[in-house]
Amino acid sequence: MRPDDAVRRLKDYWREVVLLSHVQALLGWDQETYMPEGAVEERAAQQALLQGLIHRRKTALEVGELLAAAGAGEERPEGAEELGEVERALVRETYREWRRATKLPEDLVRRFAETTSRAQVVWQRARAEDEFGMFAPHLEEILSLVREIADRLGYEEHPYDALLDEYEPYMKASQVRAVFDRLEGPLVQLLEAIMEAGEVDDSPLHRHFPREGQEHVGRRILTDMGFDWKRGRLDVSAHPFTTTLGEGDIRITTRYMEDFLPSSLFGSIHEGGHALYEQGIAEELAGTILADGTSLGIHESQSRFWENVVGRSRAFWEKYFPLLEETFSSLSDVDFETFYRAINKVKPSHIRVEADEVTYNLHILLRFRLELALVEGRLAVKDLPEAWREESRRLLGIVPERDAEGVLQDIHWSFGGIGYFPTYTLGNLYSAQLAHAMERDLGDLSSLIAEARFDAILAWLREKIHRHGRTYPAHELCLRATGETLNPDYFLSYLRGKYSDVYGLS
Amino acid sequence: MRPDDAVRRLKDYWREVVLLSHVQALLGWDQETYMPEGAVEERAAQQALLQGLIHRRKTALEVGELLAAAGAGEERPEGAEELGEVERALVRETYREWRRATKLPEDLVRRFAETTSRAQVVWQRARAEDEFGMFAPHLEEILSLVREIADRLGYEEHPYDALLDEYEPYMKASQVRAVFDRLEGPLVQLLEAIMEAGEVDDSPLHRHFPREGQEHVGRRILTDMGFDWKRGRLDVSAHPFTTTLGEGDIRITTRYMEDFLPSSLFGSIHEGGHALYEQGIAEELAGTILADGTSLGIHESQSRFWENVVGRSRAFWEKYFPLLEETFSSLSDVDFETFYRAINKVKPSHIRVEADEVTYNLHILLRFRLELALVEGRLAVKDLPEAWREESRRLLGIVPERDAEGVLQDIHWSFGGIGYFPTYTLGNLYSAQLAHAMERDLGDLSSLIAEARFDAILAWLREKIHRHGRTYPAHELCLRATGETLNPDYFLSYLRGKYSDVYGLS
Repeated sequence: MRPDDAVRRLKDYWREVVLLSHVQALLGWDQETYMPEGAVEERAAQQALLQGLIHRRKTALEVGELLAAAGAGEERPEGAEELGEVERALVRETYREWRRATKLPEDLVRRFAETTSRAQVVWQRARAEDEFGMFAPHLEEILSLVREIADRLGYEEHPYDALLDEYEPYMKASQVRAVFDRLEGPLVQLLEAIMEAGEVDDSPLHRHFPREGQEHVGRRILTDMGFDWKRGRLDVSAHPFTTTLGEGDIRITTRYMEDFLPSSLFGSIHEGGHALYEQGIAEELAGTILADGTSLGIHESQSRFWENVVGRSRAFWEKYFPLLEETFSSLSDVDFETFYRAINKVKPSHIRVEADEVTYNLHILLRFRLELALVEGRLAVKDLPEAWREESRRLLGIVPERDAEGVLQDIHWSFGGIGYFPTYTLGNLYSAQLAHAMERDLGDLSSLIAEARFDAILAWLREKIHRHGRTYPAHELCLRATGETLNPDYFLSYLRGKYSDVYGLS
Repeated sequence: MRPDDAVRRLKDYWREVVLLSHVQALLGWDQETYMPEGAVEERAAQQALLQGLIHRRKTALEVGELLAAAGAGEERPEGAEELGEVERALVRETYREWRRATKLPEDLVRRFAETTSRAQVVWQRARAEDEFGMFAPHLEEILSLVREIADRLGYEEHPYDALLDEYEPYMKASQVRAVFDRLEGPLVQLLEAIMEAGEVDDSPLHRHFPREGQEHVGRRILTDMGFDWKRGRLDVSAHPFTTTLGEGDIRITTRYMEDFLPSSLFGSIHEGGHALYEQGIAEELAGTILADGTSLGIHESQSRFWENVVGRSRAFWEKYFPLLEETFSSLSDVDFETFYRAINKVKPSHIRVEADEVTYNLHILLRFRLELALVEGRLAVKDLPEAWREESRRLLGIVPERDAEGVLQDIHWSFGGIGYFPTYTLGNLYSAQLAHAMERDLGDLSSLIAEARFDAILAWLREKIHRHGRTYPAHELCLRATGETLNPDYFLSYLRGKYSDVYGLS
C-alpha cells in the first residue's frame, strides 16, 4: 500500500472514533444540563460502553498496520516524507493517540477509571468536611497509578512529561519549569506594588442582577464576538464548559449568580473564546483527528484572550458599559471608572477559580511545583497540606485556614488530572503573546475593541490559530503566529501595562 | 450449555443493544429539542453508525448460538419448556428481533434507509406544494421495498402481516380487518346522529393562552397523574413525542400554541400516558429486551386512556376547570358546560391529528384499507389520491380539495411506516376495554377521576399493564387484564355513552 493510500484509509477508519467521541460529548453535555437524576447510573454505563468501543477501535490491529504503511514509527511519528503537510500531521496525531492507547493495558485503564471515580466522590466529601486525611489514601493510589502510567508510556527526562503530554502534547516539564521560574519573581513584585497602591472597591459587582438581564447581555456579547448560533448553543450548568458534538455543533454553558455579575459575564465570554476556536477549524479537517484544539494551553489562550485581554479591557467596557447600565438598575449610581476598576481588582485569595489575572498564575505555580514533588516522591501525600500552606505564604502572602480552601479546593487530582494545571498559565502566556502579534499585524488593539471590530480580531485568530486545528503542535503554531516560541515576557508586560493604569502605578 | 445459562448470557449480551438504543434515543431527543441546525449532517452520520453497531450486535453469530442453546427455534420461539415465564418471554422477544434482523440482508436495509430518507425530504416538499406526482415515484419505490421486506421476513396469510408485526407484534391483518369492519357501521351511524344534533361552539378554545400558563397547568396535571420528575423531563418540540433514554430517564415533549389551548393540554396528558407506561416497567426487567412497551397499540392505549377517557371526561374538568379559570383570564366568561362541550366537539375534518375521538378512527380505517390495497397491488400509486377522496367521502362525508390535506398529510408512508396506522385505533379500542375492566375492579371511574384519585388508577395500570413490559404479547396482556381479547364493543359503548351526554342524543 502506498503511504498516501494508507493515510486515506486511516482517515476513514478514524472517522468512527471521532463520531463516537462526539456522541460521548452529547452524553456528557446532557448529563450536565438537562438529565434527570434517575438517569445517573445508566448514563455511566452508556459512557463506559462508548469508552470501550472507542478504545477498541483506536487499538485495533488495522490502525497499527495502516500507520506502518504510512511510514510512521517511533523515530518518525509523522510518517513518510513524501506525504503532504496535513497528511503528516494526521499520521503524527493518529500515531500519538494509537501509541498512548496501545501502551496502556486495559487492566490499568480500568483500575485508573475505578480509582478516580471513587476518589472523586471521596474528594467531594473530604472538601465538604474539610478532612484531608479522608482523601489522602486515594491520592496516594492515584499517584502510584499515574507513575505506572508514565512508566508504561515512557519519557526521556521526567515521568511528569508523560502526564503533561496528555494535556499539552510535545511539551516537557523542564520547559514549563523554566517558563514558570521566569514568571515568579516579576509576578510577586507586581502583586506587592499593587497591594501598596491600596484596595479597589468591587462592591458594585455584588448587587442584584436578574438572570434575564445577564443572559441578555451575555448573548449580545457572544453574538458580537462572532459566535455562530446556527452551529452552537448556550445553556446553563453548575460548572461552565465548552463541548464539541460535531463540526456544526459547539455548545457552551454558563451559570448565573444573581448577586455577582462577573460570574456569568466573564464565564460566557471565556467559553465563547473556546467555542470560537472550535467553530473556526477549517472544514477540510472536519471529521478527522485534526479537527480539535492542538493543546489545552492553546485552547485556554483563546478563552483567556477573549475573557481578559478583550473582556476586561477599558476599551471593551467603553463600548458595553452603557448596555449594562441599560439592563441593570442596580448599576445606576456606578460610574465607568469604578466599574472598570472593580472588574480588575487584584487581591490574593485562596480560591483559584475566583483569582484575578495577576494572582491566578501564582496559584498555578504552586500546584505545578507540588505536583512535581509528589510525582518525584520528594513530597509525601501526608505532608501535602503543610507544603501547600508554605507555598501559599511564599507566593501569595496568605495561608488558608482550612484545607477545603487550600489543598482540597480543586477537583483535578481526584480525577487523576496530574499535569493539567500548567495549561491554565500557558493559556494566559499564549494569549498575551498572541495579542502582541495581533497588534503588530492589525494595529492598536484598543481601537479595534472600542469599535467592536471583533470581525478583524476573529479573522486574525482564525487565520493564525483556529483553522489549523491540530495540524501544528502548540510550539510550532505559536512560532508561526507570533514569530517566536513561548515567551512569558509578553504576559508580564501586558500585566504591568494594564495594572499600572488600573492602580496608578509609576 | 443449559438453557437457563444461555438465557443469562443472552441477557448480558443484549444489555449493550439496549444501552446503544438508549444512546440513539438521546441523539433523537436532542435533535428534536435543542440541536442547532448546523449539526444535521453529522447527527445523521452518528445515528447511522449506532444503527450499524446495533445491527451487528443483534445479528452476531453468538446470538443465534445462545438462542439455540436456550431451545429457541421457528417452532418454539420461546425456548425450552423448563425455563421460567420471564425467561421464556426474554427468549421469545430476542428470537423475534434476531430473526427480523438476520432475515433482512444489509443491502436491503441500506436501500430502505436511503430511499425513505430521500422520500421524507420529497414528501415534505410535495405536501408544501400540494403536488402528489412529486412523491408518487418514491412511494412506489417504498412499496416495492416493503414487499421485498415482507417476502424476506415471511408470513402465513398476507404480506401485510410481516409489516404490521414491526409495530403490533403477533397480530395479523385479518384480525385488524375483522375488528375494523365491526367498527365502521356504528361509527358512521354515531357520527350522523351527532351531526344531526347540531354544532358545538369551540371558539373559547381559540382565544389567547400565554405559554407560561399552559406550561404551569400541564406540569401540574402531569404531577397529579404521577409522572416522576426525577426520572423524566418535559421539553418542547415541533412534534410531541415520548422517548426512553434509560429506565430512569423517560422524556416527553409538547408544543405550545398560544391561540389554541387543547394542543399543549391534551398533548402533554397524552405523552404523559406513554411516559407512565415506560416509568412503570418493573425494575427486574430494566436493561433487558423486555423493558419496553409490548406493542404500539398497547402503548397508545395508555396515552389515549389518559388523554381521552380521563382527560376529556366531565369528572376531570370538574376538578381542573377552576385551575384553568385561575390561570387564563381569557376564560373568565366561559362556563364549565361550554368548555366541556368545546373540548369534546365532534366534526369531520381532513387532518387526522386534529380529529376528535369519533372521527379519528374513520381516518385510520381509511388509511388501513388503502395500505392493504397498495400492498396487494389492487391499487396503483397513481390512483391513490382519487381512492383517498372516495374513501373520505364514504367514511367522513367530506372530500379534501387539496392532496396536502388528504393523501399527503401524514409522514408515515414516506418513512416506510406501512403497517403503523392501525395501532392508533387499536390503542383507542384497548383504552376503552381497559377502562371497563378498571371500573369492574375499582368501582366508578368518574368518582376516582373527580377526586383526582389518580394513584389508584395508576396502581391498577401498573399492576395490569406497565410492570410487565414485553413479557406478554398484546393479546395475552389484554386477556389477563380484562378477561377477554380485543373487543371493539367497549369502545363503541364508551363513545355512545359519552356523546349521548355531550350532544344530548337519545
